[in-house]
Amino acid sequence: MDKKATRKSPRGDSRRRAILDSALRLFSERGFNSASIADIAADVGMTQAGMLHHFPSKAALLLAVLQEREERNQKAKSESLERGFDYLSTFLRTLHTNERTPILVQLFAILSAESIVQDHPAHDWFVERYREVAASMTSELAAVFDQSKLPAGMTLEAFARWIIAVADGVRLQWLLDPTAVSRETSMIQFFTILRPYMRDPDMHISLDEPSQEKRR
Amino acid sequence: MDKKATRKSPRGDSRRRAILDSALRLFSERGFNSASIADIAADVGMTQAGMLHHFPSKAALLLAVLQEREERNQKAKSESLERGFDYLSTFLRTLHTNERTPILVQLFAILSAESIVQDHPAHDWFVERYREVAASMTSELAAVFDQSKLPAGMTLEAFARWIIAVADGVRLQWLLDPTAVSRETSMIQFFTILRPYMRDPDMHISLDEPSQEKRR
Repeated sequence: MDKKATRKSPRGDSRRRAILDSALRLFSERGFNSASIADIAADVGMTQAGMLHHFPSKAALLLAVLQEREERNQKAKSESLERGFDYLSTFLRTLHTNERTPILVQLFAILSAESIVQDHPAHDWFVERYREVAASMTSELAAVFDQSKLPAGMTLEAFARWIIAVADGVRLQWLLDPTAVSRETSMIQFFTILRPYMRDPDMHISLDEPSQEKRR
Repeated sequence: MDKKATRKSPRGDSRRRAILDSALRLFSERGFNSASIADIAADVGMTQAGMLHHFPSKAALLLAVLQEREERNQKAKSESLERGFDYLSTFLRTLHTNERTPILVQLFAILSAESIVQDHPAHDWFVERYREVAASMTSELAAVFDQSKLPAGMTLEAFARWIIAVADGVRLQWLLDPTAVSRETSMIQFFTILRPYMRDPDMHISLDEPSQEKRR
């Protein structure tokens, strides 16, 4: 299928950007099911036909919003590891950076739950995303935890799933009641509780810049 | 405001039951925003006016569905504690019982996330529910964990919030990908990881009937 050059032109790029920003805001405010293509088109001052030229369906638009954050997070994660942050500190830094865009955190929380239903347009995306995150974290945790310190039968995958679950679950508690809990503090304290199972129980886990001698 | 006796009559009760069951199913399948009063009325073979006689709004219906599960859980919890189960085993038993109605587990997962948005009709209900659950669990955990074994500055509320978060977060992972993880196993193993901080690190945490000598 031939694609017009719209996406490559500066005007096309800025339109695409405006649509993504509006979609993000309206999906977050109203949920994916309630925010319509017509709403988003009206919000950015385009016709529906004009908008569908950039994103052929509401589902395509939704997936573009999700995918964009995921790619930004992946890039930030690589940069953080390169700068000498360990894996758990990098994880904290990703949450910290995401919280600068609370609307996107909220969108993720709502959409991940709505996408449980099999015919939701983001269902496959979220299933695959959680598989990838669990697998990649399980593999990274091998450098953090000491298998010989774990109770019999316990796997690093179980640890990965708790860490993801605490991040998601405390996010929900924080979004419902922002003064009740700080996700950052809760995650840092959670890692503290897991220290007896780490290779280096005194390892430095922090949002702060690692000192020179700690750099890899 | 005078209420008609409909709710007390057997026919009214069975109608009310049919509406609640249908609402539960349609909210779970389509989300609260997408399932309409008209859909539910059609599903139970009533007129919208007839249905609104039992529940004056969609929000009232939603809250009745949520409240019903909450009350059932509270009752089961008291019974479990009375039969000699400890608090953590009782928590496991509640999750186990809830999983017999996966559609309700799914509804809770979706609605708790959708209700983040302040004008969602269940927003206040979920804020209040999480406050109550966190407060009551924090108080119950005083009998399970030994404060003197916790790292400095750590509170039992932090533990309560992780336990709730792991239950919610692993629920999401399980609902998205049921073969990837068992919530029951994950919770039991999570409690195992927390044993070093317990008053009795060998305490019996299980879904099984407590033995006579363990009964309080």
